[in-house]
Amino acid sequence: MKKGTWLTCREDIKVLDCTVRDGGLMNNHFFEDSFVKSIYEANVKAGIDYMELGYKGAIEQYPEADHGPWKRCAEEDMRRIVGDNPTDLKLCVMADADRCNYKRDILPADESVLDLIRIATYIHQIPTAIEMIQDAHEKGYETSINLMAISVVHDKELEEALKVLATTDVDTIYIVDSFGSYYPEQMNELTKKYIDIAKSTGKQVGLHAHNNQQLAYANTVEALIQGVNFLDATMDGMGRGAGNCPVELLLGFLKNPKFHLRPVLECIHKTVRPLRKDLKWGYDIPYMLTGQLNQHPRAAIKYMENEADGAYEAFYDALIEEQS
Amino acid sequence: MKKGTWLTCREDIKVLDCTVRDGGLMNNHFFEDSFVKSIYEANVKAGIDYMELGYKGAIEQYPEADHGPWKRCAEEDMRRIVGDNPTDLKLCVMADADRCNYKRDILPADESVLDLIRIATYIHQIPTAIEMIQDAHEKGYETSINLMAISVVHDKELEEALKVLATTDVDTIYIVDSFGSYYPEQMNELTKKYIDIAKSTGKQVGLHAHNNQQLAYANTVEALIQGVNFLDATMDGMGRGAGNCPVELLLGFLKNPKFHLRPVLECIHKTVRPLRKDLKWGYDIPYMLTGQLNQHPRAAIKYMENEADGAYEAFYDALIEEQS
Repeated sequence: MKKGTWLTCREDIKVLDCTVRDGGLMNNHFFEDSFVKSIYEANVKAGIDYMELGYKGAIEQYPEADHGPWKRCAEEDMRRIVGDNPTDLKLCVMADADRCNYKRDILPADESVLDLIRIATYIHQIPTAIEMIQDAHEKGYETSINLMAISVVHDKELEEALKVLATTDVDTIYIVDSFGSYYPEQMNELTKKYIDIAKSTGKQVGLHAHNNQQLAYANTVEALIQGVNFLDATMDGMGRGAGNCPVELLLGFLKNPKFHLRPVLECIHKTVRPLRKDLKWGYDIPYMLTGQLNQHPRAAIKYMENEADGAYEAFYDALIEEQS
Repeated sequence: MKKGTWLTCREDIKVLDCTVRDGGLMNNHFFEDSFVKSIYEANVKAGIDYMELGYKGAIEQYPEADHGPWKRCAEEDMRRIVGDNPTDLKLCVMADADRCNYKRDILPADESVLDLIRIATYIHQIPTAIEMIQDAHEKGYETSINLMAISVVHDKELEEALKVLATTDVDTIYIVDSFGSYYPEQMNELTKKYIDIAKSTGKQVGLHAHNNQQLAYANTVEALIQGVNFLDATMDGMGRGAGNCPVELLLGFLKNPKFHLRPVLECIHKTVRPLRKDLKWGYDIPYMLTGQLNQHPRAAIKYMENEADGAYEAFYDALIEEQS
């Protein structure tokens, strides 16, 4: 694992745009083709390494009536946007443990435009996730694992989980700050733990941050300086609730000349910002409060959707009441 | 200087609310008395250590027709809000070098509700600033110095300036990230430099951060962990351009039970947010770009006020063009 400073160009760093996948959590993945294509083209021009098109959700659980195409990412839907993807941008999807019929729906890599399968799992689903890693690996994909909600997992259990994952064929193990609750100093310690274990079997470490406490970018910078090299980000920070690490901030920090900021700015201007009046993502005080209290942001999301009267003190009282 | 971790309660840390002073840069300090009083009362209830009421600007330079009372902070205006200030909240103003008739307008401390005079200076004004420190010190005040725009000052000049300031009677030397351009790793190094020099003559170090790159809070946490103990923050991050470190985030991090979050949330709800539809502060992409390029945010502020058509790529082109 390489370490860096704020003026180092780290060739090993990969930026993964998850705008369509994480942003789709706000509209059940009902994006127009033109939106997805615009994000795709901007990523190609910007020199981004990977783009995530959505989830590989099972149609039985996510039928077409309720969920747009980017919840399932059928091969024909992806190809309608990217053709055979004759570019340097690699493509990926997220496959949730227990919510993906992976044996059926993930094609062999040589029949798909996808390059990377990202498996997302809670700690109790790890045996399922390991089977999914193995399946994707055997089909010829790069693989990564997102172990979610770790801020409510005990240290010892987390270490055991990481040690098990380190014995699999997975290429990259992700740190996921599901609740946006970590401070940079904690991120530093967490990063060291992940890197120690991953390094022992030659794996890479990634980070998926959330912006509940305005720390998604700061935590990403902290992690990358410590040697994390797969970095998730989204255009304009788009994503459920407080959103994610903004790719435009991250590109400003990374010094690799292969990255270009201007296509991202143009895409935000023409494609992403126009959606913001309906899909209201981004930092706000209710998300800050669930982050500070290390809670899932669902109460804050509900508050912002239904009752956003700005009575933050009453929302705070309710959160504290529930905890006690 | 004490250092801490994310779980330490540092009794030496002072939080300074500068909502009215920095926020006033957006409306020429024309706040209603009710606004200033509400911020004052919330600060008292929240256990905040200091509140800044505005500038001590000379009336010749800032006449009443163009600038509200909080640009000058006449004693009678302050007393209309705080009476004799029978609370534990200390009060302060900012006095700019060359823009304050300090000999005339700063009263002896025992005739004023003010406790602290904060002198703001650019590096070429330091001789004036030192006279102002001496004047305020002799009148019986605590004093601090904000050395501005240091991200465009050479290291050697900065060190010389700090060494000179360390020989004065000033109590606290502030790190000021005027352009919101510092990354946490740079803030770490800067903090060490300030602390090394300040410590040699028993002074404290403070931080005034800006949120151009969504790093105001992260930089504040980084600095406080390294031993900085005077922390500027504002309610809802209110302040010119991208704004400041939000006090509600900072109180969530500090573990001192003397601080209370709820009154801040209530004040944001009832007093601060209602102003946001007219005074549009907070992170946005133009501020990010000037921060990344280490430029004064004035071009971004102008863009946001007059031409905010969202064509960020054209704004970026113009910034790059000007630099070359």
